[in-house]
Amino acid sequence: MKTQATEFDLITRYFKRPVPKEMLGAGDDCALFSVPSGRQVATSTDLLLEGRHFFSDVDPYTLGHKALAVNLSDLAAMGATPIACLLGLGLPSIDNNWIEKFADGFYALAKEHACPLIGGDTTRSMHGITLSVTVFGSVDPLRTMRRDAAQPGDEIWISGSLGAADIACRMLAGEIQLQPDLLKRIRPALELPTPRVDLGVRLAAYAHAAIDVSDGLLQDLGHILTASGCGAEVFESQLPLHSALNALPGPLLRQAALAGGDLYELCFTAPASAHNVIQSMGHDLNIALTPIGKTTIEPGLRVFDCAGSLVNKLPAGFDHFRT
Amino acid sequence: MKTQATEFDLITRYFKRPVPKEMLGAGDDCALFSVPSGRQVATSTDLLLEGRHFFSDVDPYTLGHKALAVNLSDLAAMGATPIACLLGLGLPSIDNNWIEKFADGFYALAKEHACPLIGGDTTRSMHGITLSVTVFGSVDPLRTMRRDAAQPGDEIWISGSLGAADIACRMLAGEIQLQPDLLKRIRPALELPTPRVDLGVRLAAYAHAAIDVSDGLLQDLGHILTASGCGAEVFESQLPLHSALNALPGPLLRQAALAGGDLYELCFTAPASAHNVIQSMGHDLNIALTPIGKTTIEPGLRVFDCAGSLVNKLPAGFDHFRT
Repeated sequence: MKTQATEFDLITRYFKRPVPKEMLGAGDDCALFSVPSGRQVATSTDLLLEGRHFFSDVDPYTLGHKALAVNLSDLAAMGATPIACLLGLGLPSIDNNWIEKFADGFYALAKEHACPLIGGDTTRSMHGITLSVTVFGSVDPLRTMRRDAAQPGDEIWISGSLGAADIACRMLAGEIQLQPDLLKRIRPALELPTPRVDLGVRLAAYAHAAIDVSDGLLQDLGHILTASGCGAEVFESQLPLHSALNALPGPLLRQAALAGGDLYELCFTAPASAHNVIQSMGHDLNIALTPIGKTTIEPGLRVFDCAGSLVNKLPAGFDHFRT
Repeated sequence: MKTQATEFDLITRYFKRPVPKEMLGAGDDCALFSVPSGRQVATSTDLLLEGRHFFSDVDPYTLGHKALAVNLSDLAAMGATPIACLLGLGLPSIDNNWIEKFADGFYALAKEHACPLIGGDTTRSMHGITLSVTVFGSVDPLRTMRRDAAQPGDEIWISGSLGAADIACRMLAGEIQLQPDLLKRIRPALELPTPRVDLGVRLAAYAHAAIDVSDGLLQDLGHILTASGCGAEVFESQLPLHSALNALPGPLLRQAALAGGDLYELCFTAPASAHNVIQSMGHDLNIALTPIGKTTIEPGLRVFDCAGSLVNKLPAGFDHFRT
């Protein structure tokens, strides 16, 4: 008689839910899915490690949500329509309650974006929780919002608001002390980010280049500029700061808005001729879309403060191997 | 001036090699690839953790090889033709020499099987090396060697030989003491397994069901039988043991052959009418293909020893959560 759940019991119980009939889900050597004719597959994978990408005491529901959200966000930035996903899960032990909540958070978001979990891998981890998520989507090869496709004179846009995830992360890490009420308001931005999937799909027809802001606005916009061979001017007065942050000191706000990562909003460039259609799109989807500057022929990224002066010392972006 | 390589430098230096022109490789939010018309995508992902799936002092070249090999083996078991792969890499620190060798091992196998690395994720790990590899291949939806497709009366085959990887692993772990010369001969079976990709692609036209033997022959064959709703008879006298193991004691050999995991040979079932064509295939590819038994209408997996008697106590298979 078995006295301990085996790996296979575990997988079956929590992660083998029905998949659309045209796919083959978990339980074979590979999962199988189809791709609409004429479209390419877009794919992205992320590794999330306890103590590095999330706190050890993170709510498992929010972790399940976020593990998938950060990958769906990559599909969004490519204008891809989700097809399916895979989950690799390394756990130090089997805690049924934890796994059930994690699975609930993961599946809720997967369902919301029609991105069924079709396979994965489960193993015992010697040191903390290890997650890998891989997503697949389909794209029209001619409308992929690649990073190298920005053109000088494009408007630069950002979805949603800036700063909340970064401030929440630094409060939770004990780096800064602010009112607990504030944390309550901004914590969802860190733990339950909304991947901009529908926005990405619609933008693909109008935007030139897009990226999701995982490493900070300046660093991620910088990737677009480098790949596209152009520069940019960004205006702090136009940055859509999270409304809960208004009372914070200027330097802290600047750091959070320009360099704060873990954001998962889309930063994209589009021709000025698309300005109105993009604004309507934001209204339709109920997502704030804000123009924050323009790309330029001159290389380099210039930020102007609210008085119109060039900011000389910009905050550094996030790098997983710095610190 | 930078005094330390950043994450992005690291990725660019070792893992951003050219990809086929119809694909988009690392450096954007998603990688992009195409799928031949009328074919489905087969995909599999594995999480490999230091101290769990490989020893801390493993040669990085062999680790790079094996991380991809175990995933290509899943494609092989589905009869899929490789398209591309993704790599997630969590490292405690940046050791250029280690990364270069790891990348060399990974790329050598990727090149051999035309499975270019098109994207991934790199991060600092707090506790040891963490790897996730995801592979994509394409399959003819009507020829996928699913686990549930075995039919009673099929011949059961195994590719290559049995036992070497298991004995090598147990010698390296200090569980058993045998001559160092033996370890030298069998260690490649553990560290440099050959995924049976070409075999899988060819078999897909003839075999009913297939699985790669990652958890042990009995356990993996058991998955086919359970999924297909049939039983099997397996004959120990027919098992192709690795030639270096002949002198080992019977119980040790039986354990290694029937329950030894980490093998990455294909176990497959095919109608008797395909016997000759499968044998020719083995000759063409220079891979030993050995019939080891038959599937039956009666459920259950029965193993007969070399004297023709039913083996009553079978060794248990490998389970990642049993320890």
